[in-house]
Amino acid sequence: MKDYSSFLSPTGRQLHESAIRRMGTVVARDTDVVSFAPGYPDPSSFPWEELREIAARLLAGADFDVLQYGPTRGYEPLLESIVPLLARRHITATRDELLITSGSQQGLDLVARLLVTPGDVVLVELPAYTGAISAFGNSRARLVGVTQDSDGINLQNLDEVCQRERQAGRRVNLLYLVPNFQNPTGLLLGMEKRRLLLEWADRRNVLIVEDDPYGSLYFDDVTRVEETRPIRADDVSGRVLYLSSFSKTLAPGFRVGWIVAPPTLIDRLETAKQSVDLMTGSLDQRVVCEAIRCGAIDRLAPQLRDLYRGKRDAMEAALRNEVGDRLHWTVPRGGFFLWATLPAGYDDVTLLARALEQRLVFVIGSAFFVDGTGHDRIRLSFSAPTVERIQEGARRLAVALLEPVSNERAAR
Amino acid sequence: MKDYSSFLSPTGRQLHESAIRRMGTVVARDTDVVSFAPGYPDPSSFPWEELREIAARLLAGADFDVLQYGPTRGYEPLLESIVPLLARRHITATRDELLITSGSQQGLDLVARLLVTPGDVVLVELPAYTGAISAFGNSRARLVGVTQDSDGINLQNLDEVCQRERQAGRRVNLLYLVPNFQNPTGLLLGMEKRRLLLEWADRRNVLIVEDDPYGSLYFDDVTRVEETRPIRADDVSGRVLYLSSFSKTLAPGFRVGWIVAPPTLIDRLETAKQSVDLMTGSLDQRVVCEAIRCGAIDRLAPQLRDLYRGKRDAMEAALRNEVGDRLHWTVPRGGFFLWATLPAGYDDVTLLARALEQRLVFVIGSAFFVDGTGHDRIRLSFSAPTVERIQEGARRLAVALLEPVSNERAAR
Repeated sequence: MKDYSSFLSPTGRQLHESAIRRMGTVVARDTDVVSFAPGYPDPSSFPWEELREIAARLLAGADFDVLQYGPTRGYEPLLESIVPLLARRHITATRDELLITSGSQQGLDLVARLLVTPGDVVLVELPAYTGAISAFGNSRARLVGVTQDSDGINLQNLDEVCQRERQAGRRVNLLYLVPNFQNPTGLLLGMEKRRLLLEWADRRNVLIVEDDPYGSLYFDDVTRVEETRPIRADDVSGRVLYLSSFSKTLAPGFRVGWIVAPPTLIDRLETAKQSVDLMTGSLDQRVVCEAIRCGAIDRLAPQLRDLYRGKRDAMEAALRNEVGDRLHWTVPRGGFFLWATLPAGYDDVTLLARALEQRLVFVIGSAFFVDGTGHDRIRLSFSAPTVERIQEGARRLAVALLEPVSNERAAR
Repeated sequence: MKDYSSFLSPTGRQLHESAIRRMGTVVARDTDVVSFAPGYPDPSSFPWEELREIAARLLAGADFDVLQYGPTRGYEPLLESIVPLLARRHITATRDELLITSGSQQGLDLVARLLVTPGDVVLVELPAYTGAISAFGNSRARLVGVTQDSDGINLQNLDEVCQRERQAGRRVNLLYLVPNFQNPTGLLLGMEKRRLLLEWADRRNVLIVEDDPYGSLYFDDVTRVEETRPIRADDVSGRVLYLSSFSKTLAPGFRVGWIVAPPTLIDRLETAKQSVDLMTGSLDQRVVCEAIRCGAIDRLAPQLRDLYRGKRDAMEAALRNEVGDRLHWTVPRGGFFLWATLPAGYDDVTLLARALEQRLVFVIGSAFFVDGTGHDRIRLSFSAPTVERIQEGARRLAVALLEPVSNERAAR
């Protein structure tokens, strides 16, 4: 039997593949490649020694639950530890409004399954995080893009698009966005816009899915902490589902994230999670919980801000040196990414093919656009590589950019 | 905003809640409860010392990938380690036919998303594992039950049900079953039936989802290892998707399972997993991989067989002592469960309510039946409690059974 196509569900036939994950596979296979592709944190920042001690304590065998099945909602002390952590981000949430997820990606998937009826419109930024595009796409949402300004989503365009889609007879229930250091643009949503978005969501009866993995990774030369205040902090009417994780602030290998949502939705998300993976890893949840309790996460945060600001500086300097004015970008105000505009006549797919010849990877801009545009952009991640590798990558990018422009276009 | 019902998808409205998970929550909250409910492994069997040493080595900081993002397909050395492990179960599978999942439950969910179109029939045993009922149900399958004999699924009824559903115009693509020590019945599917099932699947163009978490946990007083040979071992035409995990043979807290399927399906399952949780935990995969490599899993297997056979004996003896002939069951030939028939006039829901008054939990039989029957059965799990707790539980069950029968029925 070779052909299984008649067995596939509509979802199975139309699966969205992640361009970022594909690039990750390329990197995993070749250590000489310079990777500006996936938004991996810098593993030298992981608090290895503390984590080793925590794991040794947990695995002493004194507490049998450490490796046992546990409640789907999450490890109770971890749920309790997230409450004050949210409070410091001005989010008041009780334990009934919390669900532990296997990374933020699972949060997106659960939200999509709970709230997206096939054919529903989900509004996303132009460009938007590819993992969200996949999660909503695999629930067979119709993804419709909204333009962004230098301070994030354009509210006028948002309302126009929403009304246009509704007038065409489609359901518009969800707006997905990343207000802090957006993936891929690195943009920060303006403070006034955050307030106006809540009003808009009430007026138009839309729920906001606020994805905030990078909130604490602001660069203090250009960003004040107040500017990262989550939309959820001021949500008095239950319009916002807030997602975050420990992947960027501790380590992604643990796969521990969470959702904050109104209790009735959390109950249903929990029920959905039961059939999805029963629960998030028991040891992982406990290690993260202990890392919060012993203060490791708090101590780490300012170090990470300095680390990634330094790498942003290194990438900007290297690009200016090597590529000159052939690339343009706005200074990232936090997060992991530099979002660059290509010179006229270049496109992202062709440039990636050339870059691969130089053993350099990045993510093509068009992967982030649900409207088929973005071929004049690329996303360069400065978070994982060392400063030396960033410089080497910039040199390789310069070579790729110097080759003459032609009309040949690499196969996708 | 209080009412979110207008935002829910059809899946969100009809979520299947797991009766087993609910019972797990009851147990987590009260340590004096005797739990015969969830199929938890015995945590005293976990190789704590070896796992502690493995974790300490991995977290030494020498290999940055231990806590980093990694490929969705799985940690390469773990994939490679599973190949010989399968070979010993007579399954020939290449790396291209393997995907690591976040527990077997995720395998079920991915298969359901890939292969179930809403309204499709999925054939399951009467009774069937509730986690599978939830996973297929949440993909909005129509679950249709097939009767079982003492040697597993009834092939005549299987074919009748399949043809009846097809004649009614419904798609029937999948048969889900647990051939080894079925959950909840503990039955073992006969060897001849396994062969005939493959012929039947070819003839009727159906795929078989073979879920095998308990295969290595046979009790050698009543079962020979040859009798546990997976259906997949003799599948020459690519009809079988085989799922298993390390939750019962090492520890469930790691959430590491796998699927074996034809390469084209594995590729799609991997793509689906990208948007579901990106990947299974990096540390968890490595700990499991090292536990295979250092021989811990091999050493453990015979110990686990003895341990659980002893507990089965303890539960049978305790029930004979305390409950006498008020309960009937067939001797479990492996696995974690004793499946009991209640005396005439009793039903599972009422008995559970009474048992809870005695601080005893088990799973009601009807939770496993997709046709609404099974109220004369209960599932008693002997795997997790100590022998003393098994005896105490049997005493409590006897009290619950001795109360006079009435017609009051506890609310579900």
